[in-house]
Amino acid sequence: MIHLDLIGIGTGNPDHLTLAAVRAMNAADVILLPDKGADKAGLIDLRRAICAQVLTRPVAIVEFAMPLRDGAGDYAQAVHSWHDAIARVWQAALERALPHGGRAALLVWGDPALYDSSLRIAERLMAQGLALHVQVVPGITSLQVLTAAHAIPLNPLAGPVTITTGRLLRQHGWPAGAQHVAVMLDAGGAFQALDPAGLTIWWGAYLGMEQQALEHGSLAQAGPCILARRAALRAQHGWIMDIYLLKKETADASG
Amino acid sequence: MIHLDLIGIGTGNPDHLTLAAVRAMNAADVILLPDKGADKAGLIDLRRAICAQVLTRPVAIVEFAMPLRDGAGDYAQAVHSWHDAIARVWQAALERALPHGGRAALLVWGDPALYDSSLRIAERLMAQGLALHVQVVPGITSLQVLTAAHAIPLNPLAGPVTITTGRLLRQHGWPAGAQHVAVMLDAGGAFQALDPAGLTIWWGAYLGMEQQALEHGSLAQAGPCILARRAALRAQHGWIMDIYLLKKETADASG
Ligand SMILES: C[S@@+](CC[C@H](N)C(=O)[O-])C[C@H]1O[C@@H](n2cnc3c(N)ncnc32)[C@H](O)[C@@H]1O
Ligand SMILES: C[S@@+](CC[C@H](N)C(=O)[O-])C[C@H]1O[C@@H](n2cnc3c(N)ncnc32)[C@H](O)[C@@H]1O
Repeated sequence: MIHLDLIGIGTGNPDHLTLAAVRAMNAADVILLPDKGADKAGLIDLRRAICAQVLTRPVAIVEFAMPLRDGAGDYAQAVHSWHDAIARVWQAALERALPHGGRAALLVWGDPALYDSSLRIAERLMAQGLALHVQVVPGITSLQVLTAAHAIPLNPLAGPVTITTGRLLRQHGWPAGAQHVAVMLDAGGAFQALDPAGLTIWWGAYLGMEQQALEHGSLAQAGPCILARRAALRAQHGWIMDIYLLKKETADASG
Repeated sequence: MIHLDLIGIGTGNPDHLTLAAVRAMNAADVILLPDKGADKAGLIDLRRAICAQVLTRPVAIVEFAMPLRDGAGDYAQAVHSWHDAIARVWQAALERALPHGGRAALLVWGDPALYDSSLRIAERLMAQGLALHVQVVPGITSLQVLTAAHAIPLNPLAGPVTITTGRLLRQHGWPAGAQHVAVMLDAGGAFQALDPAGLTIWWGAYLGMEQQALEHGSLAQAGPCILARRAALRAQHGWIMDIYLLKKETADASG
């Protein structure tokens, strides 16, 4: 039996770790670090640094190469084959590291519940008969680092909030009936698909990291600035991760 | 000038605290603990215990009585007067504790961005001219503790999620176009307003605490169990806090 802890680590700042995450890392027999390739090489260094900083006993650290998602073809199909490929890589890494069972920890960016495939991949392995017991340690999400950095509430007063993706925003526009909309996984400027009238944006990139960048303002004014800044930062660092919250003005100004 | 840290502390388990929260608590001149009255007396004890556990230097701890919200009359109006009353109490507590300015920390349940009034109250005080500099330290939300406890993703694969309140669910039913809906601030069983066909529920109460209770299943079957269990737990403990995630079945079974 393999016990697998999916540990949310926040978004780059080791101070995002919870005491529970530190405890779970120290309780592991092995910590698995996914390597996503040269593009985001900084991210595996960051995970290594987190381990070095919080481990108080020697825990084996195993790095494994993450397969890349096929950019072409049908999106859902590509995601499914990608998850299959990751499942194979996980299984190999787990069986190599813990041939007689034990406790593995996987460090997950942000929180494992939010736009992350780890839980779905663990499900796949269990469905295929691997004796796996999964436990989740929640972590600070990029959305929380965004709202904290801007010191703003996520939801309108007593109102709802929708969390969606850049792809869906482009496809379907403003979600029906929504007042606050948080957008993740945007390959760039999906907000351009919206009529900016009455919309305010709070944007952040590299949240929690040294390069952290913030912008906010009316979408009409801040939108073009964000697009320009995003392109420049992306060119400078070779990669970017960003997220934003959009708020629609309502009659109730206290929104 | 008063520097005010709004520190998310998670939902009852001191292990939910982040390293940043521990650091901010230890950097404060004074920590303010809101006392919400006898009903939820356990919660101030819990905050006291958290302070005792993580403070590594002597920090003054000041408890102040939180005004109660008027249950009668117009809801929005009651919330506004309530926020005014809290703002007055905060201001008095801050000026008494830090007559010459300094660093105050307020421990906020879960994350300060999610259905919490602290940021709006700080805004009010600044608008009234109080020299206040606000910083937010994100904390693990009850929603994250829910998904972690059930080991489930919050969002459908590449899909959106809506976070709403029991009141809104009762008033407006299932949010238009939504697949996954998280419900907070439910005074009890708002899901009864929904047609349960095709809906699955993951429910949790007292998450992160000793009394933690979990249920899940089809809404048709689990719904009545949850109502009965909720009533029994509430009678037993004198209060309850619960939250749930509803998922609608779609053609894509991998949801
Ligand atoms: C695959 S999802 C992972 C989300 C992660 N599980 C979380 O809880 O934040 C990646 C998306 O999260 C957001 N994101 C993650 N880290 C970020 C950061 N440091 N700054 C800005 N956005 C970030 C971006 O929208 C990015 O496209
Ligand atoms: C005023 S809101 C505060 C939410 C908090 N800021 C957070 O981030 O979780 C209170 C609501 O949060 C949820 N909640 C908070 N703590 C909880 C707990 N320990 N277990 C279950 N639900 C909880 C319930 O839905 C409750 O009605």
